Amino acid sequence: MPIIEMHLMTGRTVEQKRRAVAAIAEAAATALGVSKDTVRILITEHGLEDFAVAGVTVGGRSEKKPQT
Amino acid sequence: MPIIEMHLMTGRTVEQKRRAVAAIAEAAATALGVSKDTVRILITEHGLEDFAVAGVTVGGRSEKKPQT
Amino acid sequence: MPIIEMHLMTGRTVEQKRRAVAAIAEAAATALGVSKDTVRILITEHGLEDFAVAGVTVGGRSEKKPQT
Amino acid sequence: MPIIEMHLMTGRTVEQKRRAVAAIAEAAATALGVSKDTVRILITEHGLEDFAVAGVTVGGRSEKKPQT
Amino acid sequence: MPIIEMHLMTGRTVEQKRRAVAAIAEAAATALGVSKDTVRILITEHGLEDFAVAGVTVGGRSEKKPQT
Amino acid sequence: MPIIEMHLMTGRTVEQKRRAVAAIAEAAATALGVSKDTVRILITEHGLEDFAVAGVTVGGRSEKKPQT
Repeated sequence: MPIIEMHLMTGRTVEQKRRAVAAIAEAAATALGVSKDTVRILITEHGLEDFAVAGVTVGGRSEKKPQT
Repeated sequence: MPIIEMHLMTGRTVEQKRRAVAAIAEAAATALGVSKDTVRILITEHGLEDFAVAGVTVGGRSEKKPQT
Repeated sequence: MPIIEMHLMTGRTVEQKRRAVAAIAEAAATALGVSKDTVRILITEHGLEDFAVAGVTVGGRSEKKPQT
Repeated sequence: MPIIEMHLMTGRTVEQKRRAVAAIAEAAATALGVSKDTVRILITEHGLEDFAVAGVTVGGRSEKKPQT
Repeated sequence: MPIIEMHLMTGRTVEQKRRAVAAIAEAAATALGVSKDTVRILITEHGLEDFAVAGVTVGGRSEKKPQT
Repeated sequence: MPIIEMHLMTGRTVEQKRRAVAAIAEAAATALGVSKDTVRILITEHGLEDFAVAGVTVGGRSEKKPQT
């Protein structure tokens, strides 16, 4: 059954997403010994203020770091 | 407590969503013997490039199939 | 595609789960106008210390309330 | 590792989100005794028709309640 | 950031899981053009009564199908 | 509504979980300006082979690192 939820930052191209789900489905099916047909992948995209590491959003972090 | 996350393809009408959550909350409450008030439902919608079966997104699949 | 994740407190019987997924799949398919075959449901069970309302776990809450 | 997914109604300001993830990461790290750097937080926002309590969406509920 | 949640039926060996996460992280990193170090994968296992297709759990389905 | 799903490695004590959900609910309610009563938190625990960074599970990583 593998059901895979993938969380990404927004901004991937259609091409990147298609390549990613093709490669991940292939990888999962091979490693787990199941048919690729049983693999379902859901992508959820998150904006710059919707993902945080160490309590700081991606948007907040880039404001703090001056781009010298 | 049932907390239910429902993943759908984008494009459902408000009417469809309201009917779906009403029916699902009713179904869950009855089958599990809990008050309907305790049931919470979260809907997340996914675009055509954000759901894939067998490593192919819905968008990619419809491009491959000629609409004869 | 509806993919439904249902979070429950542990302790449901097999019978309850089977009734719940049957009723929910039927409800979702009818309300959304899709075939029941496309509905997938994942159940995740949570222990008494793994679900909290208002910052208190279910286990913690029952300790506080004397069972008069 | 704490990985935290937070579901919110849409409409929070950037400032509110940044304060929330800062406070939550701090709270989780302190309570669990891990470095704040290991805490990741994902926010998913849900529209008025994408969250339901007792089988009624937020949008549906506000229509029913006359704003006297 | 890719954060990937993978839902599996219980019963995979440690070896299968290790191979799966190695292959999926590699696939995601390559397809999305990010460092493999940024990929996090969470596995959740579901029992026979905790996954249902078309309203029937895996456990329920196997009971119905006589193994001739 | 905040609904928060927290993924942890297995092995936290009841006390740690109770402190974590109390602190997180408080933090979320204050930062978002909502009543603490509306905050729900779900904990899911993951074993050593069910969480991977950079394609290596926690269990696999500790085997590779000799504890000198």
